[in-house]
Amino acid sequence: MKKTTLLLLALLTCTYFAKAEDGHELWLRNKSATNVNIQTAKKSPVLDIAINELKKGWLGKNDAKLKFEFSTDASIKGDGFRLERSTIKAKTDLGILYGTFEMLRRQYLGKADENFSSNPSYSRRILNHWDNLDGSVERGYAGKSIFWRNDQDLTISQADRELYQLYGRANASVGINGTVLNNVNASAKILTAPYLKKVQAIAGILRPYGLKVYLSVNFSAPVTIGKLKTADPLDAQVRKWWADKAKEIYQLVPDFGGFLVKANSEGQPGPQDFGRTHVDGANMMADAVAPFGGIVMWRAFVYQTSEQDRTKQAYNEFLHYDGQFKKNVILQVKNGPLDFQPREPFSALFGAMNQTPVMPEFQITQEYLGQSKQLAFLSTLWEECLNSDTYQKGKGSTVAACTDGTLSKNPLTAIAGVANIGSDRNWTGHIFAQSNWYAFGRLAWNNQLKSEDIADEWIRQTFLDAGEKAKDQAFVKPVKEMMLESREAIVNYMMPLGLHHIFAEGHHYGPAPWFANTKIRADWTSVYYHKADTIGLGFNRSHTGSNSVEQYHEPLRSKLDNLATCPEEYLLWFHHVPWTYKLKNGKDLWTELCYRYDTGVQQVRTFQKTWDKVHGLVDEERFTAVQSKLRTQSRDAQIWKDACLLYFQTFSKRDIPYDIERPVHDLEALKKLTKSKSYE
Amino acid sequence: MKKTTLLLLALLTCTYFAKAEDGHELWLRNKSATNVNIQTAKKSPVLDIAINELKKGWLGKNDAKLKFEFSTDASIKGDGFRLERSTIKAKTDLGILYGTFEMLRRQYLGKADENFSSNPSYSRRILNHWDNLDGSVERGYAGKSIFWRNDQDLTISQADRELYQLYGRANASVGINGTVLNNVNASAKILTAPYLKKVQAIAGILRPYGLKVYLSVNFSAPVTIGKLKTADPLDAQVRKWWADKAKEIYQLVPDFGGFLVKANSEGQPGPQDFGRTHVDGANMMADAVAPFGGIVMWRAFVYQTSEQDRTKQAYNEFLHYDGQFKKNVILQVKNGPLDFQPREPFSALFGAMNQTPVMPEFQITQEYLGQSKQLAFLSTLWEECLNSDTYQKGKGSTVAACTDGTLSKNPLTAIAGVANIGSDRNWTGHIFAQSNWYAFGRLAWNNQLKSEDIADEWIRQTFLDAGEKAKDQAFVKPVKEMMLESREAIVNYMMPLGLHHIFAEGHHYGPAPWFANTKIRADWTSVYYHKADTIGLGFNRSHTGSNSVEQYHEPLRSKLDNLATCPEEYLLWFHHVPWTYKLKNGKDLWTELCYRYDTGVQQVRTFQKTWDKVHGLVDEERFTAVQSKLRTQSRDAQIWKDACLLYFQTFSKRDIPYDIERPVHDLEALKKLTKSKSYE
Repeated sequence: MKKTTLLLLALLTCTYFAKAEDGHELWLRNKSATNVNIQTAKKSPVLDIAINELKKGWLGKNDAKLKFEFSTDASIKGDGFRLERSTIKAKTDLGILYGTFEMLRRQYLGKADENFSSNPSYSRRILNHWDNLDGSVERGYAGKSIFWRNDQDLTISQADRELYQLYGRANASVGINGTVLNNVNASAKILTAPYLKKVQAIAGILRPYGLKVYLSVNFSAPVTIGKLKTADPLDAQVRKWWADKAKEIYQLVPDFGGFLVKANSEGQPGPQDFGRTHVDGANMMADAVAPFGGIVMWRAFVYQTSEQDRTKQAYNEFLHYDGQFKKNVILQVKNGPLDFQPREPFSALFGAMNQTPVMPEFQITQEYLGQSKQLAFLSTLWEECLNSDTYQKGKGSTVAACTDGTLSKNPLTAIAGVANIGSDRNWTGHIFAQSNWYAFGRLAWNNQLKSEDIADEWIRQTFLDAGEKAKDQAFVKPVKEMMLESREAIVNYMMPLGLHHIFAEGHHYGPAPWFANTKIRADWTSVYYHKADTIGLGFNRSHTGSNSVEQYHEPLRSKLDNLATCPEEYLLWFHHVPWTYKLKNGKDLWTELCYRYDTGVQQVRTFQKTWDKVHGLVDEERFTAVQSKLRTQSRDAQIWKDACLLYFQTFSKRDIPYDIERPVHDLEALKKLTKSKSYE
Repeated sequence: MKKTTLLLLALLTCTYFAKAEDGHELWLRNKSATNVNIQTAKKSPVLDIAINELKKGWLGKNDAKLKFEFSTDASIKGDGFRLERSTIKAKTDLGILYGTFEMLRRQYLGKADENFSSNPSYSRRILNHWDNLDGSVERGYAGKSIFWRNDQDLTISQADRELYQLYGRANASVGINGTVLNNVNASAKILTAPYLKKVQAIAGILRPYGLKVYLSVNFSAPVTIGKLKTADPLDAQVRKWWADKAKEIYQLVPDFGGFLVKANSEGQPGPQDFGRTHVDGANMMADAVAPFGGIVMWRAFVYQTSEQDRTKQAYNEFLHYDGQFKKNVILQVKNGPLDFQPREPFSALFGAMNQTPVMPEFQITQEYLGQSKQLAFLSTLWEECLNSDTYQKGKGSTVAACTDGTLSKNPLTAIAGVANIGSDRNWTGHIFAQSNWYAFGRLAWNNQLKSEDIADEWIRQTFLDAGEKAKDQAFVKPVKEMMLESREAIVNYMMPLGLHHIFAEGHHYGPAPWFANTKIRADWTSVYYHKADTIGLGFNRSHTGSNSVEQYHEPLRSKLDNLATCPEEYLLWFHHVPWTYKLKNGKDLWTELCYRYDTGVQQVRTFQKTWDKVHGLVDEERFTAVQSKLRTQSRDAQIWKDACLLYFQTFSKRDIPYDIERPVHDLEALKKLTKSKSYE
């Protein structure tokens, strides 16, 4: 090579490495190199967005012609669409916008230019922001709230506006069409005029992106801010207060989505405080918003301090209300019966309600899966839940089918995801946590998508150039494998074989299987859940125990109830298993537990190798950020393994098999460490 | 089995595990089960100790007869001895005592009852306590000083007395016959009357165990406590002051050993402050103690802030004084030319002096080898030094031969070890650190002993019952292998291939290869020693560099000077080696460096497995204490590996080979961590 060529190469290399990518653009990194001519018979803000996206991101033939076509085709449903060679067909403006994003995505991914139709699985696909009005985010690990700062500052800056626009684009690109702007542990202040004015402004910015805003409301609001003496849902004044409040909101935000309510749950007020039922409470609010087309999402996440197994309570509380709720009420049910653990069986409520619609609540923010310090692609978790068979109406009655209208034919369908979004430049704290926002949207749109395909799409849009195929083997394949394995690795090093909720108190990051405290409710401690003793480990929920299995339909009920047939990934969820019990692979429980924990640690080390090997195939900034997070994860996986094995060993009284790497921490030191503020 | 048998078994098991061993008894756990009848024609306090030891620890035939015989046999030298079937022969009372301990050791180890002779390699075998008068111990990791508390409390309690007696027994059992009671960084106060009175009392307790006391003295003492205007060694008043002080000491302690002096070294005062030489200073003190049979141990550990390679300075300073010192002066030289690093070549001074005697100074306390947190059996390090060939008088002129009188025929021979002893119940902080005290004594007695044999003796006396053979395969073998490999593991994960002194400032525990500070002398920083740059790594001390190789005799000089022949364990000590330089195994420097660091980490993990596997073969208390220390060592080995590889990588610009486990720390985090107080 000549010297000048070398110099040029050197310069190009510098440019390459200098191409800073901080993750702020998410999976929306497409930049058009060609022109497109759009033909549309209609104008609207939503369509303007679509046109703008096409001009910014068009990767098809230069000067190609593209037509927006409003169709009455019966195969297109709701905001669905159909892509043909040079046409985007839809029934609604939003259908055109979603079709636009799909077309651009297919171009970016280098997919063949063939006809493609898609309709949404759920009519409402909603983010739940657990954002407090003081700017903090409950279970948020990516900075502060993007919506709220404090009572004194309810302004929207130009930077805010641009942030909300990008937020709108990102959500629209994956089909999310609703957002709850505040924490379910709600401050009543959100319903006061200054806050509603800001809600109006935010709604205005998000509207062209197809995002409806919703609010979490506090059941006591009529007392707290309304100066009434009661919040009794059967009280006429209370009912009027909510009706007036709804009217006030709809005057500001005509397409307001509705209310999300956490009532009589973990200390939140609710109708039971006034001797009323969840039905009374939910229906009162439903009546208030019904005239304007609003809905009420009533959370089923309730449990009392009682002798009853916590995982049974929501089902027992709500089952007998089936059919008593107003038509615009939907029950919002967490994927598992406990609380967003690394692995839970599905909540029996999904297969229980015949008339009242139920919507899944997934947690995108990784409260229990390593927060934004660890790499956990949650699509596999959600896919597992959606594909779980409830047997409600025979084989094939999956959670997906029970909630998306397939089985119930209920027109109100919805799905919620607790957002992992904050003010961090990269939105989600961990670059790979962006994939969970993406995956939630994609699964909410199409609950039959495969995690593998979602990961593939996300990786290419996030890290590769448009249509790039050269890195398939060296980058896409190993990174995808890492993502698909990531949640299982966490299950292994945190809570294998059906263990659950043995987290450190409060922060829910590190391990504290030893956590016991007689001063708080038992079901907020770890020992309540693992029930380790000299005999064995696990919570007996079979018919000889709490009998939570009875909430499931046959043949699943018997399968779970029987130690021999219970899937091993749920073994310690449903059974108290002797340390010496032989698992399917011939190892006894203690031995297998040791191997599982160790496997989890080894998996994270493999992730580190996987990522280190792609050095140079991705920009340095994001490479280093992810590398650093994986190092933390590796250390913390070791802490989990050591803490759990050393603690459970005090019951099993068995040695850790000697072919397994030894713990590098002392149990007592870990008890101190995981309590310390610096560890959170 | 009958129920009563089971009960009995259970009780026995409980007793077994309840047999608490906290390490306080060191390797002196022999308890006599049989009687011995001792015949001695002489009585003395030393012989009383011998008789007492035999009665306490006799493991031979019951009612056996044993005779102390004072012999003129020419094969018995100094305090040497000869053991015959029922006789201990010696020339001195101490010879009888040392023979007694050897006989008891042989009984404990189950050795055949055959004739055995042994003479000491060095006439003076001395511990150096770096104990300050305020009770702290410089580079001590096992609690406070056993000798000093503070100026206000110079009493000796009954507990102190018992401790000193056990200290005396332990030292006598391995042949140590001298102890310097205070830090070489000496306070002049040690020479004041109240302190000398305590020295007298301590000497009285230790005397029957054959231990002479010595003191470290401060060269400025005539000014500091003597109220003279100068400490000039040629000043008549100063000379008189020292002569008077010596007389005062010898009146209190007639067998006082002499002075240890750190002069003109690291800020300590010395003769050069008055324009005089080390010879002037040492000879003045030698004159003061000569009338009483005392000696002066003058430390050669001197280096100035200068352009000259620090490792050359002691040699250059002292070589031309050879033969000018008084007969009762001996130069005390650290094993390596730098400062007790995990691995150094031997100090060239050992092969340089033809007339002035030289004594090795080893460091028993693990200042640079993981302190009392890590398992490092230092016998292999010392054996390596003693067996190093200086070629002073041709092949075979080992450091041992140069210092033990073999080559020089000098009657004054000595060896010193910086003690690792403190007020901790187990004496040395780490149970396995006891083995270094033991090994120093054994090598000082016989510098031809093999580390493997020393380890075997120590393990059996420390952990097994007398004569126990059943645990040879399961316990002795693996634990011995661990000990013998332990120092090499530390070299691997701290400073492989000849790297040196890349420790964190001050505490010398963790890594800080990045440590640079223009405000202090360069040779107190790490970058001075490793000299990493984009070309390569290491300190060029060949003829093209600082030429420290010139201080060694041929053929060693040329061997070290030549990159191709320089032993790889000293490679980066003597050469600045390109990252791409191919080592003997075909790997280049960077790659090999990575593997060495990783190997060190894996070695510690193997030590953990080794130790965990002996669970049940050793008492629970010591098992757990060692297990916990090994866990810490495992974590800290990882910190060393990560810190060094990530830092050197900033120069090599190379990836860490992908079959190696990835770092789990970020470089910047490690820079903060190793600086923090909590890490020390």
